[in-house]
Amino acid sequence: MPPLDKKQTQELPEYDVFVIGGGSGGLASARRAGSYGAKVGLVEASYRLGGTCVNVGCVPKKIMWYTADMADNLRKAAAYGFGPEAEALALPKFNWTYLKHKRDAYIKRLNGIYEKNLINDKVDYHEGYASFLSKNEIQIERPDGSKYTVTAKKFIIAVGGRPTIPSDEEIPGASYGINSDGFFDIEEQPKRVAVVGAGYIAVELAGVFHSLGTETHLMIRHDKVLRTFDPMLQDVLGEHMEKTGLNVHKQTHVKKVEKTANGLLVYTDSSEKPVEVDVLLWAVGRHANTEKLGLDKAGVKINEKNGDVIADEYQNTNIDNIYSIGDVSGKVLLTPVAIAAGRRLSNRLFGPPQYKDDKLSYEDIPSVVFSHPTIGAIGMTEPEAAEKYGKDNLKIYKTSFRAMSCAMLDEDHKSPTSYKLVCVGKEEKVVGLHLIGDGSDEMLQGFGVAIKMGATKADFDNCVAIHPTSSEELVTLR
Amino acid sequence: MPPLDKKQTQELPEYDVFVIGGGSGGLASARRAGSYGAKVGLVEASYRLGGTCVNVGCVPKKIMWYTADMADNLRKAAAYGFGPEAEALALPKFNWTYLKHKRDAYIKRLNGIYEKNLINDKVDYHEGYASFLSKNEIQIERPDGSKYTVTAKKFIIAVGGRPTIPSDEEIPGASYGINSDGFFDIEEQPKRVAVVGAGYIAVELAGVFHSLGTETHLMIRHDKVLRTFDPMLQDVLGEHMEKTGLNVHKQTHVKKVEKTANGLLVYTDSSEKPVEVDVLLWAVGRHANTEKLGLDKAGVKINEKNGDVIADEYQNTNIDNIYSIGDVSGKVLLTPVAIAAGRRLSNRLFGPPQYKDDKLSYEDIPSVVFSHPTIGAIGMTEPEAAEKYGKDNLKIYKTSFRAMSCAMLDEDHKSPTSYKLVCVGKEEKVVGLHLIGDGSDEMLQGFGVAIKMGATKADFDNCVAIHPTSSEELVTLR
Repeated sequence: MPPLDKKQTQELPEYDVFVIGGGSGGLASARRAGSYGAKVGLVEASYRLGGTCVNVGCVPKKIMWYTADMADNLRKAAAYGFGPEAEALALPKFNWTYLKHKRDAYIKRLNGIYEKNLINDKVDYHEGYASFLSKNEIQIERPDGSKYTVTAKKFIIAVGGRPTIPSDEEIPGASYGINSDGFFDIEEQPKRVAVVGAGYIAVELAGVFHSLGTETHLMIRHDKVLRTFDPMLQDVLGEHMEKTGLNVHKQTHVKKVEKTANGLLVYTDSSEKPVEVDVLLWAVGRHANTEKLGLDKAGVKINEKNGDVIADEYQNTNIDNIYSIGDVSGKVLLTPVAIAAGRRLSNRLFGPPQYKDDKLSYEDIPSVVFSHPTIGAIGMTEPEAAEKYGKDNLKIYKTSFRAMSCAMLDEDHKSPTSYKLVCVGKEEKVVGLHLIGDGSDEMLQGFGVAIKMGATKADFDNCVAIHPTSSEELVTLR
Repeated sequence: MPPLDKKQTQELPEYDVFVIGGGSGGLASARRAGSYGAKVGLVEASYRLGGTCVNVGCVPKKIMWYTADMADNLRKAAAYGFGPEAEALALPKFNWTYLKHKRDAYIKRLNGIYEKNLINDKVDYHEGYASFLSKNEIQIERPDGSKYTVTAKKFIIAVGGRPTIPSDEEIPGASYGINSDGFFDIEEQPKRVAVVGAGYIAVELAGVFHSLGTETHLMIRHDKVLRTFDPMLQDVLGEHMEKTGLNVHKQTHVKKVEKTANGLLVYTDSSEKPVEVDVLLWAVGRHANTEKLGLDKAGVKINEKNGDVIADEYQNTNIDNIYSIGDVSGKVLLTPVAIAAGRRLSNRLFGPPQYKDDKLSYEDIPSVVFSHPTIGAIGMTEPEAAEKYGKDNLKIYKTSFRAMSCAMLDEDHKSPTSYKLVCVGKEEKVVGLHLIGDGSDEMLQGFGVAIKMGATKADFDNCVAIHPTSSEELVTLR
């Protein structure tokens, strides 16, 4: 079902709630409100529903991770007896273009499913760019340039954010580079790539390139990747990246980028010689899409530094009928956080009485990094816990081992597994869990439930181990 | 370090505790007792430590599962763009013999590690076959036929069990077949195999053969596999087996087996024509290794029907200084159960005061089946819960979906994912969780911790989802 046509936009009701932005958070809040019988509208500017997650984030990224993982698997096949004995299988040629188009088609199917879901939940789907005229009124500019006005009792701002690229004033030639959005437009596999950044997006995309055989340079400002994560994760992943031949350039700032006939020359402060690549990818941060939203006309306060809409724990902005969820609030930039916050907001605004104080707890939110191997983390890092509780009140349980999946592999193909449990006080309450190793992605959710319930080390140990798995090591730590 | 030599066995102390059987349970209890300073001996008859799990169970089975999983991966590679576009990669020839020998070498390394661990924990390692002379005395027959006597204050029986093969009187020619022990001796990949049985061992080994390209027949007595598991798991796995071309012979009893020049003819009651195979594998159950243990001389009671040593929840037998753990007690035949029971028993017997009542809770023990895809289960099945609490007091949450790992695959290569949560009462306490789908093996442990803590549906929902994973579906069930 397509968005409303021009004629339909001329006979609009006053909406109970109107959602600006058709990403994960916007869709979730709109559909939940609709399920309670509210009259709901939603507008999306990009002409494809699903937002960052579906179009240029989690979903196509995970497809690329699966693809990279497949390449890693093919490299391990000989060790399991596939192909000529004791010789590595020649890695079959990888057709990036084929996979890219297949991935695009899959995303397009998802866009369609999101449209259908909106209609099923009786949400009016508008197409265009919205900006506030007042606290109860927005203007929508349609793709054809025509404009119309929408009024609503409540608005939910869910416009998300986008990746930052340094300006050419800051770094000459910076605009020759792409960002993570552009990653998903790449039609042919680059032979050489530089990824700038140390956060999870940088690590994930560099990992995909590297596994698929692109010469990959990761340029980081300090000595470690994933600097907001537990040091153990920083160390284990960083060392494994280097061991597998990914070029990690530490203490490195890009100073200048030049375009030549052969590609791009990336000049840094850590080397005399520039690094020559085909693609330069900036993964240095994200910022909120609030510039053209007319928030001043509605009186909505933003963080002057980064443009984030300021919202409290109930997703209230300073304006009483305007709410904000997801990346635009700059709190925890994760799809499920936006979805959970959006659903709970609609529960609170339109649901039955038991939900009158519903809100999302932003504590102990589990998250995963699709690195190679994968990472999972929830709660406090060891330094954070030491800061909060004092080092003497912590008990740290750690283990590092080779998963059984490595047993048949040559040293070159073995990947590390390390787990850390951060416990506090005499009762050893678990306040942090940090995982790196194959399977960490699917392993974390259940432990997340337990930790959110207030699990102690004894609760972990009280569950019988599942053998042979990697996860069992978490319930037998000593 | 080798076992005690002949001379060493002539100057033995009276042991505080002597463990009969060097499998998972025996080793765990012996080492734990040793760590408390007890004088501990252990005897193993098979000349390799580690018992069923390490030698002919979990460990080599998991290696074979990884190998089969690799074959499945290779079949999917083309869909990710590896090799010539839109054509399946030719599956590289699989060299069973190479992998088998590599696997054997790995197991041998593990046997050695187990030996070292025993020595480290100051446990005397005896080699030979033990039988009771009295409640404080056993005789050990060494491999060379010589015998000696060991006295101990306490004995722990941890002799495990072995797979059952029907007698030739029951089924003529049955002894032409092998059991799961024999599976690990197979030197060359059979072209055709019949696996008899519907339990997890049958399902796992049939799955390995099938994935590796052996023509596989699974012969089951009723209509479903895994009859002690939740019906959803039975259905989803059974249907997927058939969809992928594994020959499931339902309502089938083997009547006769004949050996010919070409292999074995397996006659059943469900078909006129016999099934011709190279290997017939019985996976119809296991029984305790108690026949030659001289238990009557110690006065230890066994279950007359199956030979299991009868033990209470503290692992006490009817004789006050004799205990029993692991498969020989016939309770829950899982490595981690034997280990946990063994450790807790030694905690109780030799540990500090806080452990004076230590015992293993046999409730809510999670377990995994390494089928294709994997299965995880904890707690009650839906029918069990209905029986105990009444159907009206149950709330069942279910979901079935295609994991994102299927998004790039042709229908032929897609595998199912189905989850079921069994909740009881108004508070919706989770009393059962049943998973089938890729990643279920590593997914379950954390949920096991939560369920053992008494998790409700609300506790599940209270943890933010991790996107994109399969496990996230478990915290957003509606």
